[in-house]
Amino acid sequence: MTVPPASNVFPPPERLLLGPGPSEVHPRVLAALATPLVGHLDPAFIALMEETKRMLREVFGTTNELTIPISGTGSAGLEATIVNLVEPGDEVVIGVNGVFGTRLTDVAERAGATVVKAEAPWGQAISNDTIAAALAKTTKPRLVVLVHAETSTGVWQPLEDASRMAHERGALFVVDCVTSLGGCPVEIDRVDIDAAYSGTQKCLSCPPGLSPVTFGPRAVERLRARTRKVQSWYLDLTMLEKYWGEERVYHHTAPISMNYALYEALRVALEEGPEARFARHRLNHEALVAGLEALGLTMAVAVGERLWMLNSVRIPAGVDDAAVRKALLDEDHIEIGGGLGPMKGQTWRIGLMGESSRPANVTRLLAALGRLLPRQGFACDGAAGVTAAEQVYASAARKA
Amino acid sequence: MTVPPASNVFPPPERLLLGPGPSEVHPRVLAALATPLVGHLDPAFIALMEETKRMLREVFGTTNELTIPISGTGSAGLEATIVNLVEPGDEVVIGVNGVFGTRLTDVAERAGATVVKAEAPWGQAISNDTIAAALAKTTKPRLVVLVHAETSTGVWQPLEDASRMAHERGALFVVDCVTSLGGCPVEIDRVDIDAAYSGTQKCLSCPPGLSPVTFGPRAVERLRARTRKVQSWYLDLTMLEKYWGEERVYHHTAPISMNYALYEALRVALEEGPEARFARHRLNHEALVAGLEALGLTMAVAVGERLWMLNSVRIPAGVDDAAVRKALLDEDHIEIGGGLGPMKGQTWRIGLMGESSRPANVTRLLAALGRLLPRQGFACDGAAGVTAAEQVYASAARKA
Repeated sequence: MTVPPASNVFPPPERLLLGPGPSEVHPRVLAALATPLVGHLDPAFIALMEETKRMLREVFGTTNELTIPISGTGSAGLEATIVNLVEPGDEVVIGVNGVFGTRLTDVAERAGATVVKAEAPWGQAISNDTIAAALAKTTKPRLVVLVHAETSTGVWQPLEDASRMAHERGALFVVDCVTSLGGCPVEIDRVDIDAAYSGTQKCLSCPPGLSPVTFGPRAVERLRARTRKVQSWYLDLTMLEKYWGEERVYHHTAPISMNYALYEALRVALEEGPEARFARHRLNHEALVAGLEALGLTMAVAVGERLWMLNSVRIPAGVDDAAVRKALLDEDHIEIGGGLGPMKGQTWRIGLMGESSRPANVTRLLAALGRLLPRQGFACDGAAGVTAAEQVYASAARKA
Repeated sequence: MTVPPASNVFPPPERLLLGPGPSEVHPRVLAALATPLVGHLDPAFIALMEETKRMLREVFGTTNELTIPISGTGSAGLEATIVNLVEPGDEVVIGVNGVFGTRLTDVAERAGATVVKAEAPWGQAISNDTIAAALAKTTKPRLVVLVHAETSTGVWQPLEDASRMAHERGALFVVDCVTSLGGCPVEIDRVDIDAAYSGTQKCLSCPPGLSPVTFGPRAVERLRARTRKVQSWYLDLTMLEKYWGEERVYHHTAPISMNYALYEALRVALEEGPEARFARHRLNHEALVAGLEALGLTMAVAVGERLWMLNSVRIPAGVDDAAVRKALLDEDHIEIGGGLGPMKGQTWRIGLMGESSRPANVTRLLAALGRLLPRQGFACDGAAGVTAAEQVYASAARKA
């Protein structure tokens, strides 16, 4: 007889999730997760799939028929997008200014692509000139890929000029929307994005486990024109579209409960409405920045290139990165993220994504930092952060 | 303002899941799914990861260190196992007698393998002679892969001789345990299986979304000896083992809620204990078969090759496959599966997996079939199925 494990590892302690994702999950979404299951070919599940596709098109800003959740986390959607569109030998231009551009390079190379990087320092957007220079190195570029919201640095990437430049060279324009979708405008059709992928655990505030992707007409045409099978069976959209489309051909057993959660998370998001949701993300970002600056901290990304949902702030000299994050977790039950790559130990990443983007969370974090930073020898007025944030909220309320 | 979808597609109607998976989920597991999330690098989540690995080793019957859930459904585990162990040009022997052997062939070929099939008719196990003949066609076989429990047909595949034959030729022995794990003995170490993968939504009675895999010393050695990167970044075990191992290097955001569910499902399974759990699956299978035969139906798989958890029964001539399954769903809220491939329209697949394998479910299905079959012009004593099953239970109770 096997002894079951100690019970003290579950349930986990309560946390306020203000890191790079997962974000806080709405109680309605948690309740959806706990709903007893039906089969993956049940008419009731098929009805839910149809509504999910419809809602995903809304949040992506597209009419693309092939708009479905991939059965894996955001990185599975990244890989699905690349391996479906790339064949060995294809030239691919990838914007690299953080972890996710770097990851795209690795995935594309594993698919046999010849990668030309359009690089910018971590913490900065990629300029049109850099993209043009990368394109100039190619003969027949198949894809231009940019990360809309670099979760590793907090940088927002403009897309419109890049879309035009890619199409002028006959390339498909592909965008990583993992962290942007649901928190700031992602306008697939208006910006003429051919393919994009996202994740559920950022501004959609659904647990991690699914990756919505959307493929437009040119991307679908590329899929049809492939000369060899997609290298991944699990991520093969030519097969997945037959399960998510009219045919309902069994491919793999869909993660039923995760699809329940995504369905409910999309309902919550659409009930709020995109404009209100974006405004909320923007306002809480502004309040947080005001508060951090009032504490004497400096943002790591320049004005105009900052994401609303992922805020990189510099760790002051002499302050112990790990000690502050540990104290936040242990004493305040707040998770924030550390920096990655060259920004490791240099920045904190504060996520205000989806349900996490609330005034009470902003002030709770600012209050905690105001208490913890002086303990690290960083001189600041501990109450100044909360005060500054509250002024931003008060000012916004007056304008409204 | 976007209009939210009609609410009548969720929650779905109540179903009794007696198909090929997902199976019924224990209320404790549903409650675990609804637990608020922590981050994927939170010490509390890491503690849960460690307990999950420990429990997975128990159910797999192994001490393999590299025993982790892949962040996708069973087919993701299949693909992970193949693409991590295969390099282009490798010879791979695959047992093919149903959908999943066929799928393995497709996946291995996409990974560049030269596949030699060991084929048997759908509905029959693969003989030692067939495996030996396939091995004889190879020069330096890298893998021998068999499906322990063919979910598409209900066939149980013996493994011990194949393990020996594979190792005599210097090949790794790889097994698909998607449907067997948790419902009948899967003895990775005793049978000397080098790598195996499973799914959560079968006899572990957890929702679909994760795929436990286990890699033994020889498989890990193969992984280390690779000359090129694994073609899938998302499924690359050389990276995943650094997140699930001591280093805790971020790879992808783990599906937190699904891991909560797996943790609790494993606890439920280990509290019952493997022997009791296997005996329960066997007894309910025997009662179901007795009941189906008493109704005049015929099993599609020979005695000795039948799975306990997936029962293929022939559809009598003149009976409308789809009409019966639709009536079961609409009138009785019971899902069973149809046949696949050459068995489409020829068989029903009745799953008695994990929480679905209960006497009350067996008799409920038999009662429903006893009512529906005469409606299709199939002459039978509608009550005979339940009576025969109850005799099996009574007899077992007397022996206990």
